[in-house]
Amino acid sequence: MMKFYKKAILPKNFKANGIACGIKKSKKLDLALFYSDIKAKAGCLFTTNKIQAAPVQVCKRYIKSSKNFNAILVNSGNANCFTGDTGIRDAELTAEVIARALNIKKQNTLVASTGIIARRLPLNLIKKAIPQLVAGLSKQGIGKAKRAIMTTDLFAKEVTVKFNIGAKEITICGVAKGAGMIAPHMATMLVFIFTDANITQNAINKALSISVDNSFNCITVDGCMSTNDSVMLLANAASGNYLIDKGNNFTLFLKALSITCLELAKMIIRDAEGASKFIEIKVRGAKKFEHAKKVALSIANSNLFKTAMFGENPNFGRIVASAGASGVDIKEKDIKIKVSPLNKNDIFVDVSIGRGNSSCVVYTSDLTPEYIKINAEYN
Amino acid sequence: MMKFYKKAILPKNFKANGIACGIKKSKKLDLALFYSDIKAKAGCLFTTNKIQAAPVQVCKRYIKSSKNFNAILVNSGNANCFTGDTGIRDAELTAEVIARALNIKKQNTLVASTGIIARRLPLNLIKKAIPQLVAGLSKQGIGKAKRAIMTTDLFAKEVTVKFNIGAKEITICGVAKGAGMIAPHMATMLVFIFTDANITQNAINKALSISVDNSFNCITVDGCMSTNDSVMLLANAASGNYLIDKGNNFTLFLKALSITCLELAKMIIRDAEGASKFIEIKVRGAKKFEHAKKVALSIANSNLFKTAMFGENPNFGRIVASAGASGVDIKEKDIKIKVSPLNKNDIFVDVSIGRGNSSCVVYTSDLTPEYIKINAEYN
Repeated sequence: MMKFYKKAILPKNFKANGIACGIKKSKKLDLALFYSDIKAKAGCLFTTNKIQAAPVQVCKRYIKSSKNFNAILVNSGNANCFTGDTGIRDAELTAEVIARALNIKKQNTLVASTGIIARRLPLNLIKKAIPQLVAGLSKQGIGKAKRAIMTTDLFAKEVTVKFNIGAKEITICGVAKGAGMIAPHMATMLVFIFTDANITQNAINKALSISVDNSFNCITVDGCMSTNDSVMLLANAASGNYLIDKGNNFTLFLKALSITCLELAKMIIRDAEGASKFIEIKVRGAKKFEHAKKVALSIANSNLFKTAMFGENPNFGRIVASAGASGVDIKEKDIKIKVSPLNKNDIFVDVSIGRGNSSCVVYTSDLTPEYIKINAEYN
Repeated sequence: MMKFYKKAILPKNFKANGIACGIKKSKKLDLALFYSDIKAKAGCLFTTNKIQAAPVQVCKRYIKSSKNFNAILVNSGNANCFTGDTGIRDAELTAEVIARALNIKKQNTLVASTGIIARRLPLNLIKKAIPQLVAGLSKQGIGKAKRAIMTTDLFAKEVTVKFNIGAKEITICGVAKGAGMIAPHMATMLVFIFTDANITQNAINKALSISVDNSFNCITVDGCMSTNDSVMLLANAASGNYLIDKGNNFTLFLKALSITCLELAKMIIRDAEGASKFIEIKVRGAKKFEHAKKVALSIANSNLFKTAMFGENPNFGRIVASAGASGVDIKEKDIKIKVSPLNKNDIFVDVSIGRGNSSCVVYTSDLTPEYIKINAEYN
């Protein structure tokens, strides 16, 4: 049986904390630390944007050289991107500082940043705050940590799933900051997932890849891809369960991780900048999952579809035309469309393309004058 | 020497007319006829959307079975798309009716439609109007024809280029209706080009393909692709020039056709729905033209970039991030960006990616609350 909580409950041997170190002039929380007091395996997926922010580049390097991780340091208020080699050194320095404070190696840490672009990280503010950040680590600290990763998010995104393998209870806990064109200058989605599952590196990688493909890769606000997008998972084996590799236990873990990712992804869409509608688009009858996804994303990213949804206008033509623009081979006569009543906040669009048995669900928001206001007038 | 006119001047042996037959309830002009009284070769390019409107499907069939064309019949106010087999029969019937009136075969005609979707063409209105439409054909009739193809366009798009091959003057004349998310339900771009050049079919196809690739395929309002987009060229050889095939004369013809297409394309962007800015994006330093185009279109289609332009916000980060999201291999340190002052109506964005010597220019508009208003509230 799987238990689901709409709040973050850290798994065994994990602690966290969040403080305001002064990066944000608003004095809101802006520095978060997630910590496992025993070593953990890590699974990471990063933006496929060819331009990658400094912390992403540094994490990729650490993941190559290290198998174990204890900490993730995250700052909001400054994205440390478009900062060149200086930005890379700054990201490494923050890793060094937190590693020293935790008595680990910098290669055992991961770092992430979100916020204003093209400005140097205020290293002194971060350095000065580290002792307090570390001293305050606790199970309950996740409450502050989840808020310290936020930029323009209107609410914290948090999920916990618990399930058993034999007598051992396993917890998966995820927090996220949204991709609803967050931050003054750039969309960034950051997702941190913690589990006490005992699981092989291969199983982590496979489960994370599948889960992300069906969740964070199935949401879109405006099709824009950030340079900082990161999904990081730490698994510290504290639950002591029989090692998850392949077989039934993998399926169970995958299911729990998928729920975690999907719920966080939906929360990100619910918090999309300027959005007035939460839109679920199901494309069915495709030959392959990839085809269904392509059609669904083509509809979801169509400005004409999105404005029609905002206008509460059931414009079937725009849905068919954007499906056709996806490049997937479909015929007008095979397409069947159902749209739920548009005067609600939650809209369901069901598109059947009559080509096969695969389907995909994608989540998006409408395009509103408020979106333009937020993104045009942030100065 | 090449002469350029910002108005439509029909080449030798071409006539046109436009009337109000009642498809538009506003009683505005809605039926246009373009006619060459001697047979002409045709070059056509259609939407790559997998869903294609009935007139597009019918034209494709006629082009396969016929080498010569005399007429293009265009109606606005009804797109004849999402109309199934009935729509196909209706499109063929209009071709038959106009062919009979002109004493030609239906396979020697081309048809195009733009306007409201998913409604049957009012055949009776069209049939009834044909005698008057044909009777009124004249050189000056292009003035009415160019307006009869418009839907929500704010101005007619028209260009003429004249040049000489030997002692023979050749005219290329083009008219277009815009893709600025025209019509209540759908974007459609229709382009009609007429020339009295004597030119081989191969040369027509090649010149049209190159010209369209550098003009209409380099503009984007919102990345949405219509089911009706069509570019049609008729060449009737009336100029009596030495046959254009390969060599210098081809280059000359290509240059004149490219200017025609590019000027029409720019006019379409200037008339984009709700736009407040005309934006030219030049991407330089690419390994291939296709790479430059991919990067430029990725920037041009980024809602974050477009809203920043509306907000007169020189957001370099959004430009770099959308360039990186294009999938083309680029490095942050190689990218150089220049943006002209944003408080003007015309904006120039120059992006150098430091990888090679190819470049591409793309034209787009900003994303404004007015765009959303037009496209959300058209009911």
